[in-house]
Formats: sequence, C-alpha cells, structure tokens
Amino acid sequence: MNKNTKVNAAILIIGNEILSGRTQDTNTSTLATWLNSIGVTVGEVRVIPDIEKTIIDTVNLLRNNYDYVFTTGGIGPTHDDITAESISKAFGLKYEIHQQAFKILEAYYKKGEFNEGRQKMVWMPQNANLILNPTSGAPGFNVENVFCLPGVPSILKSMLGGLKNRIVGGEPILSKTISLRTVESEIAKSLTKVQENNQDVEIGSYPFFQAGKLGVSIVIRSEDQSKIDSCNSQILKFVNEKNIEIVDR
Amino acid sequence: MNKNTKVNAAILIIGNEILSGRTQDTNTSTLATWLNSIGVTVGEVRVIPDIEKTIIDTVNLLRNNYDYVFTTGGIGPTHDDITAESISKAFGLKYEIHQQAFKILEAYYKKGEFNEGRQKMVWMPQNANLILNPTSGAPGFNVENVFCLPGVPSILKSMLGGLKNRIVGGEPILSKTISLRTVESEIAKSLTKVQENNQDVEIGSYPFFQAGKLGVSIVIRSEDQSKIDSCNSQILKFVNEKNIEIVDR
Repeated sequence: MNKNTKVNAAILIIGNEILSGRTQDTNTSTLATWLNSIGVTVGEVRVIPDIEKTIIDTVNLLRNNYDYVFTTGGIGPTHDDITAESISKAFGLKYEIHQQAFKILEAYYKKGEFNEGRQKMVWMPQNANLILNPTSGAPGFNVENVFCLPGVPSILKSMLGGLKNRIVGGEPILSKTISLRTVESEIAKSLTKVQENNQDVEIGSYPFFQAGKLGVSIVIRSEDQSKIDSCNSQILKFVNEKNIEIVDR
Repeated sequence: MNKNTKVNAAILIIGNEILSGRTQDTNTSTLATWLNSIGVTVGEVRVIPDIEKTIIDTVNLLRNNYDYVFTTGGIGPTHDDITAESISKAFGLKYEIHQQAFKILEAYYKKGEFNEGRQKMVWMPQNANLILNPTSGAPGFNVENVFCLPGVPSILKSMLGGLKNRIVGGEPILSKTISLRTVESEIAKSLTKVQENNQDVEIGSYPFFQAGKLGVSIVIRSEDQSKIDSCNSQILKFVNEKNIEIVDR
C-alpha cells in the first residue's frame, strides 16, 4: 500500500453493557490512539447491542466502507458472546472449531480444565487468522479486513502488539497540543483564521478544567510535521499578541 | 405515550477528539445510565467527526429510527463547533440568533464580556427549544426529537436535570447484578439455560478483575421486577449447587 494513501478504520463496540451505561467503554480510546500511531485514521465508532442481525448488518456495512474494522466484545464463553458466529454469517463462512485455537487453549489450561464452556471460545469463522492473547489464552481472530478483539480492556491492550505487522497504515498522524490559560471565546476568531489559512490541517479546540482553573487545549493534527510547525507558529503569534499564558497539561 | 411502550434513543457523539483517542468519552455512559433510569433504552451509539455532511446525514438517519436522539459536542464558540449549524441544515431550518439564548448570555457575562466569540453560541436552528445550562450559561437546544448537549462532561451532567420532564420514557429498565467468585466458563452452560427459559429478560455476563482476583458479574435487566426476581432465583440455585462464592462489587 502506498505510504501516502490515507488509511482508515471503523471501531465497532459490541455489547449491551456499554449501551446500558453499566460499563464505561475505554477500548475506543485505546484502539484509536494505537491506530493513529500506526497511520490509520478512525472514521467512526459504533456501539451496538448483542443482537445477531445488528452485528451482521453493521459489520457488512463497515467492512465495505473502511480499510479496517476492529470489533471488541462478545468472544467469551457465555450465551451473550455471539460475535464469532455473527462474523461467520456476515462473511457467509462456516462457524466451526478452529484447530489451532483448540491446541492453544488445550495447552493453556490444566488437564481437565478445558471444559465445554471454554471450548466455545475456539469456535470461529472457517480459516480465520488468530490474534494471539498473551494474557488469558483465548485468541481473537481476523477475517479479511475485520479484526475481532475481546471486550476486557487489559486483555485487548495486550493483544495489540502482535497485531501491528498485520495492519498497513499510511503516514502516522502527528499532533501538537498547545494548552492555554484562556477561554475559547477569547481565541475563537484568531484560531478560525489559522484554520482557514491551513485547510488541510485539522485544528481542534478543547476546553478543560484543571486544578479549578479553566483552560483551552488547541490540538493540531496532520501527517506533515512542517504543516504542524507552521500552524503552531501562527497560533503562538496571536497567543503572544494577546498576552495569553501557555500552560503545561 | 403509553407507559408500556418501549421507548428508545440513539446517542451521537460528535468530535474528532474522541476519534483520535485523545479524549476518553464518558458522556455515553452518563447519558445511557440516565436514559435507562427514565425508561429509555439506548439502541446505538455513534461517534462521528466534525464534518458537516456526516453530522447532517447521521442525525437525519437516527432521528427517523429512534424516539430520541442525543448529541454531544460541537456547540462551543470555536471554528470546529459546527453542530448547531449542521442540525439546522438537517431539519431545513434557518440558522439564526436565538433571542432568548442571547438574553441569557448577555445577563450571564459581565458587561463587555459577551464578545463575538461567545455570541456564536446563541446561533441555533430557528425556534429551537433551549436546554438550560446551570454551569456555564450557554444553553443546549432541541428540535423535535433531537437534543443537543455540550461535550464537556461536567456541564452535560448539570443539564440533564432540567431535561427530564421533556423526555417521555417507558417503564424504567430495572436491573439486578450478581457478582460471583468464578470464571465465565464455569457458569456458561447453566446461565445459557436460564436465558433460554427467560427469553424476554436480558442476561449479560461480564468478567472482572478486582484486587487481583477474577470474578464474573451477571446482570439481569427487564422492566418487570418479578421476572428479574425469578431469574435471580434460578441463577442462585445453580450458584448454590456449584458452591460458588457470591461477592460484593
């Protein structure tokens, strides 16, 4: 893949526990940060319930619209873990025991512990590629451009390292943050001008509260460091003119 | 609205900062918990970038598919705050100064502080209904079934109280959590049977790590307390038979 091509991905969080508010999703932020670091832009995130038709339809939509799709959740041993079977149906593949995954888990557990419940975790779409799990044994998998990861954040994190070589990113997306002791309305007009003069750079403005004080972080994002540097100078120019304090965050 | 009608909502998180991984979204969990408590089920969540066409298309899709849509983000004073204008376009409404919002902010700020940047925050879809903001003045708004809230979590939270009477929910969704000192594979089969015998109840199984120990939380959700109680008994029966410890979480 040409290194200058934009590469994008969608993240699909599967799980009623996120939609009920019971569980705070953190996998989006983990995956998005990691994807950006390897030159993949996240175009959208969807959170959907554990409903087979919804999973199938959403996966089929997203895998056609994005270079990569990352799913999280629903690959454990219980009845509400329906991701692997749903992905099989989305691709029209047989849902069957994955022999390599079976061997991995058979070796992972003590004799007699690889019970029926755990064996559910080796059922996958036919010929899926495994994503190894250094934390708790049970692998994730990928089919074509769809990568299926577990929902437990610490396990998901531990699996990303082994995945890196299977994702072909574009230029890494670089960013520069300038945090100011000001409010957005004080800089809105000047910042708009900088954005207008640099339309191929993404400039975001995010208010924050820290130690009881208000501030604004300006984030400049681009694949081109020289464009970031140029925007940075233009921003520092008006910050200086307005006598606004720059703070660490 | 009939109190027995199922009422659903979609949450639309608008902002590049979530898609880049820089900011951890917490508004989904806040909104979902609150919506469930007033009898509104969240059917899906989408996170999309600050791109006008994407906002317009997604809002128009979701507002037709769900009883309510809640957006967060993009209603501040800077150039990347394009939600209000995008919502205007989604509804084919004029984007204009909202007189009541203007008066609120004029009174909120000290004389001379209600500058051009801040005045951007009173531009809204024509005849939008305001959602008052007890924290930082600038109101959110709603048009028909679409409710637009800010992205800053503490401000969003403070605005929900005033919104409650404008949302007509169904029966509140009740839940019961049973936390066990076990692993999912030990209970998967028994739990599947309980789910099969109670298909109109949502039973989820979520592994957790706490103080270095593994556990599983089983969450039973329904609008009918007696159904929850019945599932609870059926689960406690096998938990007891298997001699599994029940833990507090």
